Amino acid sequence: MIVVMRPGATTMQINEVLDRLGTFNLKGELSQGEERVVIGVLGAPIPAGLGQALEALPGVEKTLRITAPYKLASREFHPLDTVVRVRDVEIGGNELVVMAGPCSVESRDQLLRTAEGVRERGAKLLRGGAYKPRTSPYAFRGLGEQGLELLAEARERTGLAIVTEVMTPADVPVVGQYTDVFQIGARNMQNYLLLEEVGRTDKPVLLKRGLAATIEEWLLAAEYIMAQGNRQVILCERGIRTFETATRNTFDLNAVALVKRLSHLPVIADPSHGTGKWYLVPPLSLAAIAAGADGLIVEVHPDPDRALSDGAQSLTLENFGRLMQQAQAVAQALGRSLTPEPLSTI
Amino acid sequence: MIVVMRPGATTMQINEVLDRLGTFNLKGELSQGEERVVIGVLGAPIPAGLGQALEALPGVEKTLRITAPYKLASREFHPLDTVVRVRDVEIGGNELVVMAGPCSVESRDQLLRTAEGVRERGAKLLRGGAYKPRTSPYAFRGLGEQGLELLAEARERTGLAIVTEVMTPADVPVVGQYTDVFQIGARNMQNYLLLEEVGRTDKPVLLKRGLAATIEEWLLAAEYIMAQGNRQVILCERGIRTFETATRNTFDLNAVALVKRLSHLPVIADPSHGTGKWYLVPPLSLAAIAAGADGLIVEVHPDPDRALSDGAQSLTLENFGRLMQQAQAVAQALGRSLTPEPLSTI
Amino acid sequence: MIVVMRPGATTMQINEVLDRLGTFNLKGELSQGEERVVIGVLGAPIPAGLGQALEALPGVEKTLRITAPYKLASREFHPLDTVVRVRDVEIGGNELVVMAGPCSVESRDQLLRTAEGVRERGAKLLRGGAYKPRTSPYAFRGLGEQGLELLAEARERTGLAIVTEVMTPADVPVVGQYTDVFQIGARNMQNYLLLEEVGRTDKPVLLKRGLAATIEEWLLAAEYIMAQGNRQVILCERGIRTFETATRNTFDLNAVALVKRLSHLPVIADPSHGTGKWYLVPPLSLAAIAAGADGLIVEVHPDPDRALSDGAQSLTLENFGRLMQQAQAVAQALGRSLTPEPLSTI
Amino acid sequence: MIVVMRPGATTMQINEVLDRLGTFNLKGELSQGEERVVIGVLGAPIPAGLGQALEALPGVEKTLRITAPYKLASREFHPLDTVVRVRDVEIGGNELVVMAGPCSVESRDQLLRTAEGVRERGAKLLRGGAYKPRTSPYAFRGLGEQGLELLAEARERTGLAIVTEVMTPADVPVVGQYTDVFQIGARNMQNYLLLEEVGRTDKPVLLKRGLAATIEEWLLAAEYIMAQGNRQVILCERGIRTFETATRNTFDLNAVALVKRLSHLPVIADPSHGTGKWYLVPPLSLAAIAAGADGLIVEVHPDPDRALSDGAQSLTLENFGRLMQQAQAVAQALGRSLTPEPLSTI
Repeated sequence: MIVVMRPGATTMQINEVLDRLGTFNLKGELSQGEERVVIGVLGAPIPAGLGQALEALPGVEKTLRITAPYKLASREFHPLDTVVRVRDVEIGGNELVVMAGPCSVESRDQLLRTAEGVRERGAKLLRGGAYKPRTSPYAFRGLGEQGLELLAEARERTGLAIVTEVMTPADVPVVGQYTDVFQIGARNMQNYLLLEEVGRTDKPVLLKRGLAATIEEWLLAAEYIMAQGNRQVILCERGIRTFETATRNTFDLNAVALVKRLSHLPVIADPSHGTGKWYLVPPLSLAAIAAGADGLIVEVHPDPDRALSDGAQSLTLENFGRLMQQAQAVAQALGRSLTPEPLSTI
Repeated sequence: MIVVMRPGATTMQINEVLDRLGTFNLKGELSQGEERVVIGVLGAPIPAGLGQALEALPGVEKTLRITAPYKLASREFHPLDTVVRVRDVEIGGNELVVMAGPCSVESRDQLLRTAEGVRERGAKLLRGGAYKPRTSPYAFRGLGEQGLELLAEARERTGLAIVTEVMTPADVPVVGQYTDVFQIGARNMQNYLLLEEVGRTDKPVLLKRGLAATIEEWLLAAEYIMAQGNRQVILCERGIRTFETATRNTFDLNAVALVKRLSHLPVIADPSHGTGKWYLVPPLSLAAIAAGADGLIVEVHPDPDRALSDGAQSLTLENFGRLMQQAQAVAQALGRSLTPEPLSTI
Repeated sequence: MIVVMRPGATTMQINEVLDRLGTFNLKGELSQGEERVVIGVLGAPIPAGLGQALEALPGVEKTLRITAPYKLASREFHPLDTVVRVRDVEIGGNELVVMAGPCSVESRDQLLRTAEGVRERGAKLLRGGAYKPRTSPYAFRGLGEQGLELLAEARERTGLAIVTEVMTPADVPVVGQYTDVFQIGARNMQNYLLLEEVGRTDKPVLLKRGLAATIEEWLLAAEYIMAQGNRQVILCERGIRTFETATRNTFDLNAVALVKRLSHLPVIADPSHGTGKWYLVPPLSLAAIAAGADGLIVEVHPDPDRALSDGAQSLTLENFGRLMQQAQAVAQALGRSLTPEPLSTI
Repeated sequence: MIVVMRPGATTMQINEVLDRLGTFNLKGELSQGEERVVIGVLGAPIPAGLGQALEALPGVEKTLRITAPYKLASREFHPLDTVVRVRDVEIGGNELVVMAGPCSVESRDQLLRTAEGVRERGAKLLRGGAYKPRTSPYAFRGLGEQGLELLAEARERTGLAIVTEVMTPADVPVVGQYTDVFQIGARNMQNYLLLEEVGRTDKPVLLKRGLAATIEEWLLAAEYIMAQGNRQVILCERGIRTFETATRNTFDLNAVALVKRLSHLPVIADPSHGTGKWYLVPPLSLAAIAAGADGLIVEVHPDPDRALSDGAQSLTLENFGRLMQQAQAVAQALGRSLTPEPLSTI
């Protein structure tokens, strides 16, 4: 950390900074510039609130952090790529992984048709919400545990692993009984008690980026999970909120490429929420793969216009099938693989 | 709701929209423009997911919602101002209410000194965090129930009512044993299960706006609480996230004035989080009052540079006292009142 | 400037940074932390592109600038408030200054009625666009030089000074023949050739903040003007673009208060563009004054619903009159003055 | 356009809206909902300022535009893809086009080395700034006409066509003497007089998206050029400004895919400005191609760490060569072509 003093800061003010550093067993190294004094902080670890505390001291203009505030999620700490195993699927390896399914589990028929359809076309995991966060209290909010049971039945029939959202710490045990991967939704990215609760389980966690979360805050949220012992975190970029309203969110593929550099964790892209429009899902899926994503999570519904949620951004099975063929071609061009099942294996 | 068809939409596509509306007991009214057909939706209520479902139909370009999606929080539904009573304090009436105290409860001494100091200078409620959401897992996260006990002790000694944050549904009972007002933090504005849990209590709720929440989403979050029966919601503007990094957040005073028009609920402003810098707190506090806020919530610490959290945005007691004098002058200029206690009453 | 090396940066890479600094006559001071080397840059001035050049070197992680990149606009350079004189009006002194008038000059009758109306109610400058930047090529774009002539006539009849926009360097001479203050619009805040052209005149410049401009970029735009010799720059906050769409822009009053601290230049607030809704103009005008603005620029139209541009955000003369009374009360509460003319002086 | 009245709007207020529409030769069609009246506007064209004018009328809550405000740039108006021809290169056809070169023209040697290097590796156009907009008045701002001469010399030696920025209307003739394509920079996207000036020439225009421009505003800026007669507009996505500061801008690939649907104009992507970091340029270049871009514009410098501007985001020739190989593979996977020259042709 660097402490920048105001021009004209007094010796007493500088000494107060040095004293304060001393109470944390840190040392300050003065550097006298033309206009002002800058103090380099030596020693470790830097407490999380140090910058704010020093900025409250008289004579201090600002503090600048130099090292990333996360460790466990950082590639510096762990240079090799993490590969997360879910049943017999590896996420973060050379093969791309596609997760697909409806926004919400609505009925047995809807779910099984979708599960079989996406499996035939090459998906490896089935997504589907049993507990749904909705902006309006008057919208459909999922089937709850009945939805989890249907997901388990779909897994049994198709062999697909399951990823589904958990919304509150108290639900972690029941969701954990059914799911293979816990999904933490964008609105819950900074629900720290929930992060810690899944951090104490031994199941992989798909951590969606919050709508207004910086990349650093996203990796700190991963750190919350990992600090509890669970290192199987899969990051998921799903679009951020910006001034542009022509699309539901602004899909930030810069973040996909940058996070692969800053962290060892696998990164999945969600073009359905990232765009909000079904006709933008195929081009942006391919773009996410080209940017370096380790896979996709895509909303698919056999009948999108009758979906109880997110119909406008769901692909039909036919469109999903076409996308998988193109995704395979792009993956191969990049030296990675993605294997749509041959239809004959069904 | 208005359904805008694409130019060249076929009669079959238009009929499909009309049929779908029929399944919700709604009617469509066609209007044939120069270039395209527009369908007005008649009947009520409009289901929350209708727009998305219709946008998934072939031939539909977009849907436009005409009425606000919230009811209970809306001034149309409830034209008179709501006044929330907390002990003997009224929030939302002609008198402005100031809530003050430390970011976190750190110790008995710190809390009692602050409580007495802010009471002397005219605060009516004591704020203080016992459970703190922190971006980093390595930061100080509050004293928990011990902090709640200290708050209760401070209330007993000063007569100040208490407002403190609750972070998860399971904590609502314990926090409710101590606090007078539940605070829902910005990161939890869309933690719907938490909203519903406080909505089932009979204590007032201070609902902070999320960092990336639109005004509509904020009022929908209030609707979640109110739909459970608890109508005592106090809105709190605390800054939104924008591209500007010279301040911690962008304090949105447009929102204060607009929400007073859209809703009957009282609105409190939080210039400490809204700016992130103690020296901006006084001018922006006055600005919030001038924009129509019903009160302020301000971080005050007897020794900001030793605060375990948010020191950089905390006022000293002296600065808080000066602010209260100015706030009183501005309130009076606007025909409202704010009464700093005469120091002699202590 | 601080240069942060990557962990594991080699001595050769560090030497390359030091060599590069040497070519600019700067010195580097090494500081060996636990994990990485940090290089403090000593000497001045720091060339504007230095950070980018160093970040292209191998082994460099990032650079952090410590001093503000502007000088002439900085309060460090010029601690006392600048007061800009326009005819007999002082902007930036204790008395607040209100500029008012229509968005566009539309006709002689409209302009003269407005000018007389706002003068009677206490405005000191008349605003009005002769050249209008419009998002659509098909919108009304102003009367051009004829509009300037009407502004001059209005000045002659009312004694009000004039502020009007200049859109391109080639128009500076003709606009300068008529106006008292050049207005640089938000879209042109980084039209550097235009900034330099008005910087070579001896007339005050009202510099609006760009929709997506940081405070630093805004002050750098002022620096462009001042570097040409013209030090009479008046800053104008008019709202920034954010994700919130319920208002036209997000009026950033944090910026008003912060700029008063960072710079010696006067700051005017434009609540008409800052909110986009006439009914939000009064509360946000008062808020801007409370935040420390040195005055207001407000759109007023005798007949807003027949305005050729920006009708939705224009006040009627009656509403403007009421606002001026309230503004006077708030100004006095803050120890500043604002003097609506007594109506009898007309 | 739809006019939404407030609940309780009076018949007189409704009639006032209808009368006002009549003055524009438009008709209003009333639709009486449960809570309020909605008025559909029939007739065409809708004047650009109509919405704002109507919103100033008493009783009107808001207006909603239904049709896009641009025509010439719209795919509805012109369903087939526009292909822009620059010398013997086609932009917008099946073959992708890569433009490459330094941010600024710095010297004859730098430019010729780069031009030959990028030509050998498959670039079809040479980019390079002779006039540079810079945030700071103290930064290097280009060689001016001497830079244009060097670009012309480089064209003669390599056969590459030239694209270079023009910053102000008065410079259009001189830049037009040298360049093959006018570039309009992001800061000038709404410099309407400049747009019109290049709109009166017969040379193609590369129109960069503004940092805070919506897709609609960007297409309206294209409309400004096209309305003057010049239909050869090439759109260029270069990143938007958001809250994320880990990258220079947020590269909006949603916009690339959406604009291909809304408009017939070719779209080029600029990953150098879109990311600001050279190591993110290759993955995001590939992503842009996968999202449907018709080509790339990339900063390449033989010696990025000695570049006078934008060194941190410039590729070396070696990295550019590798990128071209990968880009070719991705293009082929998508059924498009991109042909790096065989090195032997040099």
